[in-house]
Amino acid sequence: MMNDLAKKTDELPEKMKRFPMVLCRNIWKVGRDDPRRAIHALKVGFSLTLVSLLYLMEPLFQGVGQNAIWAVMTVVVVLEFTAGATLCKGLNRGSGTLLAASLAFLFEFVANKYGKDFRAVFIGTSIFLIGASTTYLRFFPNIKKNYDYGVLVFLLTFNLITVSSYRVDDILKVTRGRVYAIAIGSGVCILMSLFIFPNWSGEDLHNSTVSKIEGLARSIEACVDKYFNDEEQDLEIDDTTEDPIYTNYKAVLDSKSTDETIARHASWEPRLFSWRCRNKFPSQQYIKVGGILRHFGYAVVALHGTVETEIRTSKSVRLLFKDPCIRLVSEVTKSLMELAGSIRNRRRCSPDILTENLHLALQDLNTTLKSQPRLFIGPTNGPNDMPKMPQPKPEKRLSGSKTGSRSFFERKSSVGRERKVLRPMLSKLAITSLEFSEALPLAAFVALLVECVARLDIVIEEVEELGRVACFKEFKDGGDDV
Amino acid sequence: MMNDLAKKTDELPEKMKRFPMVLCRNIWKVGRDDPRRAIHALKVGFSLTLVSLLYLMEPLFQGVGQNAIWAVMTVVVVLEFTAGATLCKGLNRGSGTLLAASLAFLFEFVANKYGKDFRAVFIGTSIFLIGASTTYLRFFPNIKKNYDYGVLVFLLTFNLITVSSYRVDDILKVTRGRVYAIAIGSGVCILMSLFIFPNWSGEDLHNSTVSKIEGLARSIEACVDKYFNDEEQDLEIDDTTEDPIYTNYKAVLDSKSTDETIARHASWEPRLFSWRCRNKFPSQQYIKVGGILRHFGYAVVALHGTVETEIRTSKSVRLLFKDPCIRLVSEVTKSLMELAGSIRNRRRCSPDILTENLHLALQDLNTTLKSQPRLFIGPTNGPNDMPKMPQPKPEKRLSGSKTGSRSFFERKSSVGRERKVLRPMLSKLAITSLEFSEALPLAAFVALLVECVARLDIVIEEVEELGRVACFKEFKDGGDDV
Repeated sequence: MMNDLAKKTDELPEKMKRFPMVLCRNIWKVGRDDPRRAIHALKVGFSLTLVSLLYLMEPLFQGVGQNAIWAVMTVVVVLEFTAGATLCKGLNRGSGTLLAASLAFLFEFVANKYGKDFRAVFIGTSIFLIGASTTYLRFFPNIKKNYDYGVLVFLLTFNLITVSSYRVDDILKVTRGRVYAIAIGSGVCILMSLFIFPNWSGEDLHNSTVSKIEGLARSIEACVDKYFNDEEQDLEIDDTTEDPIYTNYKAVLDSKSTDETIARHASWEPRLFSWRCRNKFPSQQYIKVGGILRHFGYAVVALHGTVETEIRTSKSVRLLFKDPCIRLVSEVTKSLMELAGSIRNRRRCSPDILTENLHLALQDLNTTLKSQPRLFIGPTNGPNDMPKMPQPKPEKRLSGSKTGSRSFFERKSSVGRERKVLRPMLSKLAITSLEFSEALPLAAFVALLVECVARLDIVIEEVEELGRVACFKEFKDGGDDV
Repeated sequence: MMNDLAKKTDELPEKMKRFPMVLCRNIWKVGRDDPRRAIHALKVGFSLTLVSLLYLMEPLFQGVGQNAIWAVMTVVVVLEFTAGATLCKGLNRGSGTLLAASLAFLFEFVANKYGKDFRAVFIGTSIFLIGASTTYLRFFPNIKKNYDYGVLVFLLTFNLITVSSYRVDDILKVTRGRVYAIAIGSGVCILMSLFIFPNWSGEDLHNSTVSKIEGLARSIEACVDKYFNDEEQDLEIDDTTEDPIYTNYKAVLDSKSTDETIARHASWEPRLFSWRCRNKFPSQQYIKVGGILRHFGYAVVALHGTVETEIRTSKSVRLLFKDPCIRLVSEVTKSLMELAGSIRNRRRCSPDILTENLHLALQDLNTTLKSQPRLFIGPTNGPNDMPKMPQPKPEKRLSGSKTGSRSFFERKSSVGRERKVLRPMLSKLAITSLEFSEALPLAAFVALLVECVARLDIVIEEVEELGRVACFKEFKDGGDDV
């Protein structure tokens, strides 16, 4: 314990010295990853200065008075990165405030008829009831998802007005001033987010869909490459470098909640620049494509599992299937890249172009499977039983056992924990599984590849549907250069 | 268009009539799903009434004055469902406010030495700079994840104080009053969330881990049952009823962001009731277990894929493997349930008990595989080539093709869209894949089962690590009834 502390104290000056450099690098990295962030930061600073003028400049202050504070508050809270998020928050805030104010005035109207003591009890009771029921309302899944912020603002405003009304005589006047100030703040927010370097959630959703498809394409290609080309040393460096297969499909699998938030914001955005299409922004269809891509991703994960499994098919057997598998995967990759490109350029894709070679590649693989009918025979059989096939030399690697799953896991956790030695129980299991037929993983690999092709079909179908709903350009041959 | 409108208008009275019933059912359902919600709602109502008394009761009002509003605001914004979330938000808010106040007074101290015009310019500039840089700071991944709310409050408070200071003379006094009121509000929140029917995020994380493990166990069991027992009619009713396989693993796969939020909150919670363990609540280890469970879940998804694939192995062949597969899976299920039970009761589990039968079941499956060496022969071979095996009768179902993937997708989307007829391109692909060896999916199924067992190993290891870090009770034989 003391040693730890001493060590940390020793490291402190070193860390302090490096801190400015690390900070600068981080600042630069955040901006380089997405330059719109820097622009947004400037926009917020500018908007805040703008509403502060209400307070700082004499003529403006005459009009708005102390309530200018509420304009500042509105800008801080409502102005978000994308136009959709700003509108969503602004409208939630606006409607929450209006509803709460109406209800508060209704209560005030009723309470006003009675004496002061009764009013205190009445206000206390209504605060309790509205507080409890509004909080309960926030647990409704639908409200939690879409209107949580609005309900919170409703509760806040209702309480502020009701409580203040007890001591302030002309609560209506006070409230009116605040509402004006909030309206000014909201106006600035809308102006800034819609008209000055706007960032669109719809655009983000669109781009993230494209990059997810590309990521899956890269992931599946790398998977198959690794299966057929990996050498012994691969297993050693596996843990230190980031595995591109893993990072690419991981981004797709973890995208659900982010996508749903972006899509919710996108559905608030007006389609200012959509002269071609009268439909609303099809955020639901993007969500659907996202779901289908995740479904495709699960197959890629399973494929990755067979690549990194404990039981390895011997290289000579794998070589037999190398060409048709690689051909099939390159067709799948090509189709995915074509799809990504068509979404990026907002034009429809031609299903024929996408699948004609795929069809041939599938047949090719099928022919290879048929030409090796005795392949999937367990290793217990004598070699005299397999005339057509080169002698499989089982490459059983106990040292590499569990690398796949384990490295998956260790990549997730923060680095730095020493690897634990396998307990006897574990290695017992590992040895057992090593005795299985070495043809099993190859069969699984091929079956999962075919499964990927089947799922690719659904991806193609949904992307076409997306093109239809979002009014993408019609397909033209060589249409990319339009 | 007009027809639609007319139809909707016709349905309106019917909907209005049903609305109260639907509402009541929803209200009841939200409370029944988790009765703590109702308690939390009452707690919020009570806390709000409590802080309102500052305003409503004369002697209290004398002390706090108009600033009582800030206590109300604090309670509305800070009091969250679990203790951890409340503390996280409260501390974020507190530190944001204090930092902002200090900085604002520093600026005020500098600006005060100069004339009014200079002060206005100085305030405007500082608002711009602080606004822009703070907003930029919020894009840092680490800050966005942990301190986003604190940074927002910092910006808000800084602006409020700086702007107000321009017109108010004794800003220090005003601020002090507010800080007192906020402290009272925070005190009420902490009291309510820590001591009166507290809900712990750590508890939530713990329980969700248990139910995820149980869900996976049920899912994998249902998967294998379906593979060996399904009859033709299954495919027909597949789309209407919720598939238990799907719902169970889906909950695990989608748990990442929720889990991370809960874990972040849990790490703020003091371990009030942990007399046994001096360690912090091991939220990171729970997150790790969650990641491993998701990894296990991907294997289950792949298994589900082979169950619902287009190419189906004939029943007679499947029957050969039924017993060892079902035995293996029941052992996997038993191990998972044992793990779930051990976490629920906070006691360690014995790896030997978990895996000894698993080991035997694996060997059993292996023996079966070896005893059917010629199983994985493509359908092109003549039947005279397979002496040991019953005649496989390929059950090729074109009608059922794509049911698996499609039903996955349609379960996701809202029901009600008519099914589209398969386009020629799709069915061409489907036919091609149907010509593949029917042994492929069986091989994939078995390989994935073995993969599940391998991943189960890592689950066991991580749950043991969890037991160690969280100081679960030591394992005792028949220890459940302690």
